[in-house]
Amino acid sequence: MTLIRQLSTPAAVVDARRMQRNIERMQSRMDAFGLRFRPHAKTAKCLPVVQAQIAAGARGITVSTLKEAEQFFEGGIADILYAVGMTPDKLPRALALCRRGCDLKIITDSVAMAREIGSFGKRHGAALEVWIEIDTDGHRSGIKPGDAVLLDAARALHDAGMRLGGVMTHAGSSYDCDSREALLAISEQERAGAVLAAQRLRDHGMACPGVSVGSTPTALSAARLEGVTEVRAGVYVFFDLVMHNVGVCTTDEIAMSVLTTVIGHQEEKGWAIVDAGWMAMSRDRGTQKQKHDFGYGQVCAEDGAVLDGYLMSGANQEHGIVSRAGEPDLGIAERFPIGTRLRILPNHACATAAQFPEYQVLPPEGGVQAWPRFYGW
Amino acid sequence: MTLIRQLSTPAAVVDARRMQRNIERMQSRMDAFGLRFRPHAKTAKCLPVVQAQIAAGARGITVSTLKEAEQFFEGGIADILYAVGMTPDKLPRALALCRRGCDLKIITDSVAMAREIGSFGKRHGAALEVWIEIDTDGHRSGIKPGDAVLLDAARALHDAGMRLGGVMTHAGSSYDCDSREALLAISEQERAGAVLAAQRLRDHGMACPGVSVGSTPTALSAARLEGVTEVRAGVYVFFDLVMHNVGVCTTDEIAMSVLTTVIGHQEEKGWAIVDAGWMAMSRDRGTQKQKHDFGYGQVCAEDGAVLDGYLMSGANQEHGIVSRAGEPDLGIAERFPIGTRLRILPNHACATAAQFPEYQVLPPEGGVQAWPRFYGW
Repeated sequence: MTLIRQLSTPAAVVDARRMQRNIERMQSRMDAFGLRFRPHAKTAKCLPVVQAQIAAGARGITVSTLKEAEQFFEGGIADILYAVGMTPDKLPRALALCRRGCDLKIITDSVAMAREIGSFGKRHGAALEVWIEIDTDGHRSGIKPGDAVLLDAARALHDAGMRLGGVMTHAGSSYDCDSREALLAISEQERAGAVLAAQRLRDHGMACPGVSVGSTPTALSAARLEGVTEVRAGVYVFFDLVMHNVGVCTTDEIAMSVLTTVIGHQEEKGWAIVDAGWMAMSRDRGTQKQKHDFGYGQVCAEDGAVLDGYLMSGANQEHGIVSRAGEPDLGIAERFPIGTRLRILPNHACATAAQFPEYQVLPPEGGVQAWPRFYGW
Repeated sequence: MTLIRQLSTPAAVVDARRMQRNIERMQSRMDAFGLRFRPHAKTAKCLPVVQAQIAAGARGITVSTLKEAEQFFEGGIADILYAVGMTPDKLPRALALCRRGCDLKIITDSVAMAREIGSFGKRHGAALEVWIEIDTDGHRSGIKPGDAVLLDAARALHDAGMRLGGVMTHAGSSYDCDSREALLAISEQERAGAVLAAQRLRDHGMACPGVSVGSTPTALSAARLEGVTEVRAGVYVFFDLVMHNVGVCTTDEIAMSVLTTVIGHQEEKGWAIVDAGWMAMSRDRGTQKQKHDFGYGQVCAEDGAVLDGYLMSGANQEHGIVSRAGEPDLGIAERFPIGTRLRILPNHACATAAQFPEYQVLPPEGGVQAWPRFYGW
């Protein structure tokens, strides 16, 4: 049995008990709403993680790349929403997945692209399932719920014989919230916008079976979800310091951290240098503009206990600088001698996880199991 | 023959002609100084890139992880400097490489670790080659050139029968410069500090054959390198927008870019949405604090021509926002319709390259060749 002290560093360590609790917390919330939960697999890109979500009750998954769709379909998951706007060049790859039996749903937010999907589908005798992306907070893509373009896009799909699966939205600006009131408001805005868009389609005689919403903050905050048929969320499976600042998790719920080794010091500056730099942590500084800036991450002991005030304050490619916030710790070389193992909680789990070919998973029964993850497109 | 228009996006595209020119520019500069050039392989992590550097005259390489050392040794490169401070747990892996015939040089900046290396080496009957890391600019690791600790560390290695290969330093703060004067000054500071450290060791009767310095900005700026025996640099092979702002390359010399496809628009905001988000570009915002902030990157046409004023101004995981700096381009949907291919020059080539499993290399003779790269530790 591999032990954590045998791992070479840096390593992406996953606390399986915390991950399982996060999965159950979200699933039981969705079960209470009586809604389908479709987790976003982009955070972990790891089959055993998705299998744990499905075992807990998730139905289908969301992906951010066609590679994820292909990998998870190979792993036995057929119901997949590819939640990034379709383009002409990606249609053959999407069609190939459908032909292999994948129940793939694609999205668009453009009339021109809806027409292109329609003519491609007709040309290949395929009634592709397409969802229309709705913009409920102005942060990225999507058609505004009240925009006439919504009806034009839906009609273009319908007229070409494509299947309109529904409308979907992602209120990504929920990441900017840090109060219960703001989270409630953005959740309701996300819900109401998606429901309005669906209603407008139905009012014009078009079937719109699905109404899909979600982000980790809104999924964990929404007080009501009337009219919604499914919810999506991704980062909740690991959580991170950004989510901690948003107010939807504690640091004790963060399931992924980077195991690192102290490689040196600059004693007079109060620095310990560790072998996790930005290549391990990623360059994500998501907490920089939040109420608590954690630098490149919160330092914990090897057993995961948070070491209050110790942050990764700087990072080069393979060097991290660990220091105490405020007054420098001039005794840091004695506190963390060379060879000391630390764990760093990440700003953004999706970005940090992406730097590693595998997770080192710590199951409740002890030992370490390696779970592979994939990357690329 | 694969063509660039057949590539699926996002893709890391390398202009082979530009890369070759960058390699030759650096090598001819080092040849003029009569110095050994030891490129840092951490930027590309790609054997064909290193082979091109060696074909041009480089002797040996620098690496930032033991995995790089192992991969490049398998690829036929024996003379390798592992330029991150050694730790007790990594010694067996380093020794295994030496036993296979790798001429591996390890580094330390600590007396305690020098003793640990010494006792490990003695225990295993191995006279490991160790270089001492010198701090010439206060940005990260290393012993100050005048510090008494330098002599203690060298003696600890010597007394245990290890081979002191020399002293090495990296003036990483050269990345903060943006004038010829500042670059000259930091180059001279790097040189003088390393030479002083070597001189102090020699004055105390210890052999110090190697004096190794380098960073891309200092290697391209140094006016004199007396006393130096070798120079290291990494990012020059691709260059990037950070190096452009430092003043050591033009945008026309940047050899790596991210090929991306327009997937939608928010016309009233002047946004085109592309399928390269931070997963493709990395979260590196290295130009944020420089004289010209390029956002997540400079937008170019598919053929590589810079589109002045168009930047990737925002990024989610798989979505990038392309917009015009200053006045929004309300005609952006006509300018860049869905399906348009663009190329984005990165802030930091090391970080962006790390997001991709392979490079799509455009050789002068046309077509596209895939060159694999590796990641992880």
